[in-house]
Amino acid sequence: MFRRASERAGGLPQNDKGKGHMTLDDLETPAALVDVERMEANLRRAAEYCRAHGLEWRPHAKTHKTPELAAEQVRLGAVGVTVATPREAEVMATAVDDILLAYPPFGASKLERLMRLPEHVRLTVGLDSAEALDALAEAARRAGRTAGVLVELDAGMGRVGLGSPEHAVELARRASETPGVEYRGIMFYPGHIRGPVAEQDEALAALDVCLGERIVALSEAGLRPRVVSGGSTPTFWRSHEVAGITELRPGTNIFNDRTTAEIGACAWDECAYSVLATVVSTAVAGQAVVDAGSKALAKEELRATGGGYGALLEHPEVVVKAVSEEHGLLDLAGTEWRPRVGERVRIVPNHVCVSVNLQERLWGVRGGEVAAEWEIAGRGRAPWVARAQTAAIG
Amino acid sequence: MFRRASERAGGLPQNDKGKGHMTLDDLETPAALVDVERMEANLRRAAEYCRAHGLEWRPHAKTHKTPELAAEQVRLGAVGVTVATPREAEVMATAVDDILLAYPPFGASKLERLMRLPEHVRLTVGLDSAEALDALAEAARRAGRTAGVLVELDAGMGRVGLGSPEHAVELARRASETPGVEYRGIMFYPGHIRGPVAEQDEALAALDVCLGERIVALSEAGLRPRVVSGGSTPTFWRSHEVAGITELRPGTNIFNDRTTAEIGACAWDECAYSVLATVVSTAVAGQAVVDAGSKALAKEELRATGGGYGALLEHPEVVVKAVSEEHGLLDLAGTEWRPRVGERVRIVPNHVCVSVNLQERLWGVRGGEVAAEWEIAGRGRAPWVARAQTAAIG
Repeated sequence: MFRRASERAGGLPQNDKGKGHMTLDDLETPAALVDVERMEANLRRAAEYCRAHGLEWRPHAKTHKTPELAAEQVRLGAVGVTVATPREAEVMATAVDDILLAYPPFGASKLERLMRLPEHVRLTVGLDSAEALDALAEAARRAGRTAGVLVELDAGMGRVGLGSPEHAVELARRASETPGVEYRGIMFYPGHIRGPVAEQDEALAALDVCLGERIVALSEAGLRPRVVSGGSTPTFWRSHEVAGITELRPGTNIFNDRTTAEIGACAWDECAYSVLATVVSTAVAGQAVVDAGSKALAKEELRATGGGYGALLEHPEVVVKAVSEEHGLLDLAGTEWRPRVGERVRIVPNHVCVSVNLQERLWGVRGGEVAAEWEIAGRGRAPWVARAQTAAIG
Repeated sequence: MFRRASERAGGLPQNDKGKGHMTLDDLETPAALVDVERMEANLRRAAEYCRAHGLEWRPHAKTHKTPELAAEQVRLGAVGVTVATPREAEVMATAVDDILLAYPPFGASKLERLMRLPEHVRLTVGLDSAEALDALAEAARRAGRTAGVLVELDAGMGRVGLGSPEHAVELARRASETPGVEYRGIMFYPGHIRGPVAEQDEALAALDVCLGERIVALSEAGLRPRVVSGGSTPTFWRSHEVAGITELRPGTNIFNDRTTAEIGACAWDECAYSVLATVVSTAVAGQAVVDAGSKALAKEELRATGGGYGALLEHPEVVVKAVSEEHGLLDLAGTEWRPRVGERVRIVPNHVCVSVNLQERLWGVRGGEVAAEWEIAGRGRAPWVARAQTAAIG
């Protein structure tokens, strides 16, 4: 079992009455809960899948933004983590020594922050332009460091990344010839494949062809990618069907969420994250209103079956049908369950990453007990300054 | 002109090169900008409207969550502020001495936090249940304080609030007879009226009737509401058409946003808030990708004209057509403008309140200069602890 933040601070979280361990009843709502046993099982399952298929596991820390959880991922077999922002890189560097920034850093300030990461950090950056490459290389040279580079490809999502094999070869060559950076391979994000896992055959076949062409083109140009970094939570369990991939960067599947369950990439009882909320009004018939709205769950509508913005962990048929900033409206039309004002519920949001980003801390729970408290230190943009009481993780 | 946070800390924000005042170029992106002159004009306009119609102005601080801006609202004529959470109440109590918590506080911890607000704070709470009322009254009696109560009515939104005049009378009577609380009136939120300002006639007429019935019922029961608290940004400029209202609680119109402009409740050049972002990729044709996504703008789609998640302040025809967590996709289909990688843009989000809630600080700007830096201290849930360098506002 992994070390708890609270153990380093001396014992389990105590309630404010000094009467022993905290329970869920001691938490103010809304509060972000992590079922520790489910999370551990999710992480072990992902690690085993990667081991079984000879893939490296580099989970995206954007989901939890919490160094203690990154350390746990590494303990279970991750080769390092993926991050999206300088803040996440700074925070994760307290727990992990191999970081992929899967986002081009623009501007002197971001580049300087990256170059100030501790010496022990092996840094790789994903990018898709000569501008981003040249700026990174210059900053690295000035700092006397070397940054790894992955050339980002568009594998069908149409968001970022180079579309043609020729452009990929061109940028890879520039990376291989520019002092200050080291060409390490390619990356892509299959974010266009979000449908049911069982219906991904065609999209995965197309991805396989797309990737194969680019690997061949690069290899023929003497730029064979050692790293081919891909993977997402929706496609996670079928990643081995795409030839050439060497590493996977799933974020969500540490916790899972309602969308992940909806597409069959996890079971409902593999959802490890929920928002504890209190029923604050039952004045309007047919619904109950809780104190978790778009500032706790986020407002990302599920456009598939069920709709809405989340569902109750214990009553998945009860959907959050609407949210305003501090209100979530539970639809009671399809249930006999009738909550009273003051009662507490646990809500699984549609998209866990954006819900976590709205919290200050995660409460690790085992049964009804609060087993750990983690500050979501990677949240925000400002440079990370460790607080006195936050020890670095070994 | 109001005092700047930075003036208290000794001078304007400096850039890190010690070469003088900060400009927009010195800010890392994404960064939340407030055009100080536009904000001041927005506040003055709202204050003047309220004065002209004999209405009290009690702006909702959930939009800015920043005590310096609440102090400015009071300086310009607000009778106090509205808040939604104990954290907002604690933070606003450093700047304002009259606070309406427009949200029922459930749980011992929230009630204790409210009762620990400084003595100078006149507190009123909006609620719609006997459970919330009784718990508040008990906490107040125990603390030797008196909390004001507004009975919350549902005036057509169907979210929270009592629906019938009879239920309103019943809870108002209970409030008037319960020691520890003082019945002060009623409140409602016309959140169902969100369409174009020019098309609100029918809805406002219905609201007028609904409210009139309830005021009559309460008055006949000897419970005439001294306070009738309503108002929202979409209906703001037509509030005087609804008889009986005594105070308005707009949040958004300190800054305005794309939705407010879309419905005609403000002009585009009255949008005072924008997110400064950098173009990080132009690899995919027909679009430019910026480093502000759902973790900076929020993902609240505009379902009216234009769609998308925001638009450029300087090129309103350029819409953010899609967002993922750290990516915003600018649609270049309808413009000749072609940004280069590294270029900066300012994005007006659809819904300013949830975008502000994703930031750590607001940068007050005048022209291209950074004139103020405000910590968004009311963000988050944990009890407010003033930092040593943050002086209380007089």
